[in-house]
Amino acid sequence: MRTNLIREKWARDEAVLNGWLAVPNGFSAEVMAHQGYDALTVDLQHGVNDEANLIPMLQAISTTDTVPVVRVPWLAPGIIMKALDMGAYGVICPMVNTRDDAEKFVEYTSYAPMGRRSFGPVRALIYGGADYPTHANDTIVRFAMIETAEALDNLDAILSVEGLDAIYIGPSDLSLSLGCTPTFDDVDPPAAEAIDYILERATAHGLKAGIHNGTTTAAKARIEKGFRFVTVSSDARIMAAGSQAIVADMQGSLKPSESGGY
Amino acid sequence: MRTNLIREKWARDEAVLNGWLAVPNGFSAEVMAHQGYDALTVDLQHGVNDEANLIPMLQAISTTDTVPVVRVPWLAPGIIMKALDMGAYGVICPMVNTRDDAEKFVEYTSYAPMGRRSFGPVRALIYGGADYPTHANDTIVRFAMIETAEALDNLDAILSVEGLDAIYIGPSDLSLSLGCTPTFDDVDPPAAEAIDYILERATAHGLKAGIHNGTTTAAKARIEKGFRFVTVSSDARIMAAGSQAIVADMQGSLKPSESGGY
Amino acid sequence: MRTNLIREKWARDEAVLNGWLAVPNGFSAEVMAHQGYDALTVDLQHGVNDEANLIPMLQAISTTDTVPVVRVPWLAPGIIMKALDMGAYGVICPMVNTRDDAEKFVEYTSYAPMGRRSFGPVRALIYGGADYPTHANDTIVRFAMIETAEALDNLDAILSVEGLDAIYIGPSDLSLSLGCTPTFDDVDPPAAEAIDYILERATAHGLKAGIHNGTTTAAKARIEKGFRFVTVSSDARIMAAGSQAIVADMQGSLKPSESGGY
Amino acid sequence: MRTNLIREKWARDEAVLNGWLAVPNGFSAEVMAHQGYDALTVDLQHGVNDEANLIPMLQAISTTDTVPVVRVPWLAPGIIMKALDMGAYGVICPMVNTRDDAEKFVEYTSYAPMGRRSFGPVRALIYGGADYPTHANDTIVRFAMIETAEALDNLDAILSVEGLDAIYIGPSDLSLSLGCTPTFDDVDPPAAEAIDYILERATAHGLKAGIHNGTTTAAKARIEKGFRFVTVSSDARIMAAGSQAIVADMQGSLKPSESGGY
Amino acid sequence: MRTNLIREKWARDEAVLNGWLAVPNGFSAEVMAHQGYDALTVDLQHGVNDEANLIPMLQAISTTDTVPVVRVPWLAPGIIMKALDMGAYGVICPMVNTRDDAEKFVEYTSYAPMGRRSFGPVRALIYGGADYPTHANDTIVRFAMIETAEALDNLDAILSVEGLDAIYIGPSDLSLSLGCTPTFDDVDPPAAEAIDYILERATAHGLKAGIHNGTTTAAKARIEKGFRFVTVSSDARIMAAGSQAIVADMQGSLKPSESGGY
Amino acid sequence: MRTNLIREKWARDEAVLNGWLAVPNGFSAEVMAHQGYDALTVDLQHGVNDEANLIPMLQAISTTDTVPVVRVPWLAPGIIMKALDMGAYGVICPMVNTRDDAEKFVEYTSYAPMGRRSFGPVRALIYGGADYPTHANDTIVRFAMIETAEALDNLDAILSVEGLDAIYIGPSDLSLSLGCTPTFDDVDPPAAEAIDYILERATAHGLKAGIHNGTTTAAKARIEKGFRFVTVSSDARIMAAGSQAIVADMQGSLKPSESGGY
Repeated sequence: MRTNLIREKWARDEAVLNGWLAVPNGFSAEVMAHQGYDALTVDLQHGVNDEANLIPMLQAISTTDTVPVVRVPWLAPGIIMKALDMGAYGVICPMVNTRDDAEKFVEYTSYAPMGRRSFGPVRALIYGGADYPTHANDTIVRFAMIETAEALDNLDAILSVEGLDAIYIGPSDLSLSLGCTPTFDDVDPPAAEAIDYILERATAHGLKAGIHNGTTTAAKARIEKGFRFVTVSSDARIMAAGSQAIVADMQGSLKPSESGGY
Repeated sequence: MRTNLIREKWARDEAVLNGWLAVPNGFSAEVMAHQGYDALTVDLQHGVNDEANLIPMLQAISTTDTVPVVRVPWLAPGIIMKALDMGAYGVICPMVNTRDDAEKFVEYTSYAPMGRRSFGPVRALIYGGADYPTHANDTIVRFAMIETAEALDNLDAILSVEGLDAIYIGPSDLSLSLGCTPTFDDVDPPAAEAIDYILERATAHGLKAGIHNGTTTAAKARIEKGFRFVTVSSDARIMAAGSQAIVADMQGSLKPSESGGY
Repeated sequence: MRTNLIREKWARDEAVLNGWLAVPNGFSAEVMAHQGYDALTVDLQHGVNDEANLIPMLQAISTTDTVPVVRVPWLAPGIIMKALDMGAYGVICPMVNTRDDAEKFVEYTSYAPMGRRSFGPVRALIYGGADYPTHANDTIVRFAMIETAEALDNLDAILSVEGLDAIYIGPSDLSLSLGCTPTFDDVDPPAAEAIDYILERATAHGLKAGIHNGTTTAAKARIEKGFRFVTVSSDARIMAAGSQAIVADMQGSLKPSESGGY
Repeated sequence: MRTNLIREKWARDEAVLNGWLAVPNGFSAEVMAHQGYDALTVDLQHGVNDEANLIPMLQAISTTDTVPVVRVPWLAPGIIMKALDMGAYGVICPMVNTRDDAEKFVEYTSYAPMGRRSFGPVRALIYGGADYPTHANDTIVRFAMIETAEALDNLDAILSVEGLDAIYIGPSDLSLSLGCTPTFDDVDPPAAEAIDYILERATAHGLKAGIHNGTTTAAKARIEKGFRFVTVSSDARIMAAGSQAIVADMQGSLKPSESGGY
Repeated sequence: MRTNLIREKWARDEAVLNGWLAVPNGFSAEVMAHQGYDALTVDLQHGVNDEANLIPMLQAISTTDTVPVVRVPWLAPGIIMKALDMGAYGVICPMVNTRDDAEKFVEYTSYAPMGRRSFGPVRALIYGGADYPTHANDTIVRFAMIETAEALDNLDAILSVEGLDAIYIGPSDLSLSLGCTPTFDDVDPPAAEAIDYILERATAHGLKAGIHNGTTTAAKARIEKGFRFVTVSSDARIMAAGSQAIVADMQGSLKPSESGGY
Repeated sequence: MRTNLIREKWARDEAVLNGWLAVPNGFSAEVMAHQGYDALTVDLQHGVNDEANLIPMLQAISTTDTVPVVRVPWLAPGIIMKALDMGAYGVICPMVNTRDDAEKFVEYTSYAPMGRRSFGPVRALIYGGADYPTHANDTIVRFAMIETAEALDNLDAILSVEGLDAIYIGPSDLSLSLGCTPTFDDVDPPAAEAIDYILERATAHGLKAGIHNGTTTAAKARIEKGFRFVTVSSDARIMAAGSQAIVADMQGSLKPSESGGY
């Protein structure tokens, strides 16, 4: 079976640089996949991606060695199993708030006897290889999102669920849940403390920790703290930011001066 | 009929800042349309856009005041008329090399008696208003691309065709055609001279001149020279460049140092 | 944040005229959006719409001031949150049968501390404006469908859930559930009584009441009774009815008469 | 091979009632196909249909006995042959202005020795049957659009081209070309005379005449004059007109009266 | 209402030959629908099909008498009801493991008073006919998948749920759940025994039994045993197997021999 | 630049095995791309593929080393250049009947000074590499289809056009044009002689010859004769043939025998 670069990097204690795909399109996914990210996550939860365009996006990523990850919309077996059948090598699951949530997540992502994933790796066989069924459980990566006060309360119970590989923090949701302003990098103190706490506990349980960042500055600081999976920005945000820079830079040059000349 | 901001800006001798859409998707088009460009061009010639996604992209642009422009794949009546019927307020036509080409281009884009555009402005009526048929000829903008040695030879004959509103220069194609290296901004001297010459002749004929740029630096310099429609980069290039910057910036921070720490 | 015309009309005690979109297409949505409806609902529950075409349909509606509403397929957090992230300003949720259902519905549609909506208003920021996160809870409209005998039994418990803005009646489902013939307007007496009862209780609880109608006659009568959100027919039904009228009208004119002439 | 209902009706001197599809969607096409039209034309020329959605639309029509017709965007061999390969039983070709145009049209739509249609009836074999290649030339119907002053000048030359089955008049384009106001039914006198003249010459040459109508009134009058293929309105126009009627009818009932009550 | 060929065949004690659609496309579905299968199942659970392409696939099947069946991704009311509204005449539901699961499945697929299916048979009315609402409960076929050890434990409780029409066995999942190697035909003895047991109990309860097969050999043997709904292979598997045969057969002929000649 | 396996094989005098894609879908394309064909051709001429699905199909092929080839609908610059910009490494052009046709074909597929291909290799840069512009002219393969009596008359004039790399024979069209029955393998004698003649002349001019086959038997015989690019069947034909075999094999086993038992 094709190996999972995320696991390989982690084995060497390296951090994984993850890109984020909000534009529901195979061509933009292919452009992103050729820029050197270690992994790319198709976000099915927020925004505008859907199952129908997941396949061309995963195919586009498959033209490179970048690892395909999917954030599913919710802890629901149908879409989680389908993302895996389509060839995702990592699954990020939102709102894992209780031990029961975490157990279900592992169950849905693992073949028996480890779990109850239904058998039918239609595209995963093509992407992963003929021995996918034998190695899938140990190859794919399961990220549980820790992003609520409730999850904080249940943290050790969640982290001790066997089969869970990593946690992923959405700083915005975590902030909101703690009564703070939703943002990615400069979060309010209670959210900052919670992030540190989650990182510490995850590491203590032998799990890797991932987090969403708005800037490389935040991502670098978080790697130094111990995060080993960092997302920076997204395709749509990069496009918007780059355009804003162009528009701002051009603004003063689009009209004749008071004197009439350019 | 909804007015054309490009014509309004030109009437005030202002330059139009144009964005370029290479990603065949309505959501990325909507993101781009909200960043402040005066106009956005959907490129049907090079790359991956096609008729099927033209409509959602034009609809996305229509959620703003940004002017929708289409670069058609070729001087062919079917797609030129269809782009207008779909609500394009500007058409950029590649490879206008002869006076005959220019006449056909005006003919295809104009209702009788000015031309032979077939009648059926299905979406243009929705976008432009009920009086679209009466004002379309005077509202839409026709850009002829001057990008070959042959076009240079026929330049005055092309520019004197009644109804042509503007020219648009593709520096890469023009360079190639003149035996120079294809690039956007720092073109070889023969191409640079040709660009100046086209600008000078277009202005002399009362036409506006537009040009494709890789950077704002080039765009500003060209506005100063007299160009009044400047494209800077594209959605896909911005996304790639922004990602490359992120990946490069993160590169040194993804592995533990020789000493083992981060 | 862009205001919600539905709330504005309700503040003036006006009734909202809602159109219904069953055709999964952005162009038909755009045509519908330009006919003067106050709101348009994309129906993801019955028929043929799906997430993949929701975005172009919402974009098409966004070219006008018509309020975009989505009827979700079921009380499920994934799709409810996604419809909001995509920019829906109203959500109609089927089969709200218990107080617990209603609480979950409010929870899924509201940011903390009011609820548990996950944060990521990708397109809602574009449609609503940069301050969307602050005002979303108070701007969007939550419609709980009351359409079963079970819901009737729990009516006051449902209606007293804080955060619920309105109810919406599907006369067909309500009829079916009460053992009556499923229809929109001329419902059987038990269904008619139930409709009156729901309207009366909703009004008593300070909620607005909405209902599906087949004809303007029914819609007008229901507004007089107190309904403040009325749907009349749908894109597909209008298309079918108009075609049937044409076909019927032409029928006698398509064949030569017995005498051989037309 | 499946017979062509258009030819069967014509053999009995009956008129064919044609519906018009402007919405690029398979579901709206299926709804239209079940309303009793004899034929349905997918319009690839004006508006928003494209090759990508032609297949689902033709499949939707194929669930009924309604005859699938395609109006191609232009007299171009690629799309004309493809529409036939996809199973169209009729082709309407715009802007047939000269005898040469008409000859090319027949050539592109007919297998050797009658013409030069390339062989590859991929879906036509499924729709028409295994003997499609043998009977296609005699089964499909070729409509040349007569809609310009130039075509009027060349009318007899066009109509005498062997293999042409019918003409189709676009009253709007014909009006425009003759300096009249573009409309469907109540055309200006010069256009009206031209229509009568085309009908008379087509009939004299043994060809059937078709025409686009806005209303059943016009369609009936034109059948009486001798037209044998009449289009009435379109899916999008019916939807818009029906919605306008609803909105207008509701208008007075959406606000409380001056006195405050409804 | 259009009758259900599956029920008709079963009434004559005939076995139904079912084809399997893994390619998310309307054209491949149409090709498959014309090859003589009694039924075709669109698989929404494993692989790459999704709601967005379900409609064109069902339309493609509707051009023939082949019965359209949908395997839904999971026991979830939204997609089960939608598949029926779209015109599916059979629903295969994965992972029916308890009596409660089976009761919910019947509930979701049946109108009141038999169940709680919501009313809105948008496309089902077109496919089935105007009296669809009256006969749907008795016409559609409900297949519960028995594929886990848990389901075996609850077998009689599941099979005795009123309204359930049939069971369907996925030999791979059943094997996995029993600790055997996942495969279609030559399953390990514990799985083979379980299959026999399920067949025996289903028959005893008056339900029909269906099963997935890799080859016709297995399918025939299973019909002899008593199965009355057999799937053989799938569109994608047939395509892959046929290609492998071509590639293997050509392999020795693509290079010149040692001696240099072919 | 990524090398072209077709040219490498030809340099070793090996024959290229080409698969044919008629199903307009990225997943079926990916399945086909993993079966071992040397090249896969997306057919845009006949049947149901279109520009909109070309990108996902080419991306799917790009997940392997199989060479992507496109048969364009016609000798038209727009689509030929676009197919190359999208990353096609081979182009098959139908109906090259004259020397002028062949010259235009080379012109459209080659950058200056060799031709007039417009510059904008949007996806080709991603697939081929950054030096694509420098090597494209020498890397891509140009196939002119020789398939009419007219082309036979002009054969040497066509074959002597500099830059043409290969010819491709469509036995069906060639047969039709010569008054023979259209078929792939067992063509009538005049067509067989024409095929031999084309092969002989192409070889004499130093061009490679390719041909469409229905079976491996025909393909092998033609390789022995000297063809070096052979297509066998297509995705849709393989799927239909495999299904027919299954249906036929099952036919006798689906009903109880006369005696009542199976």
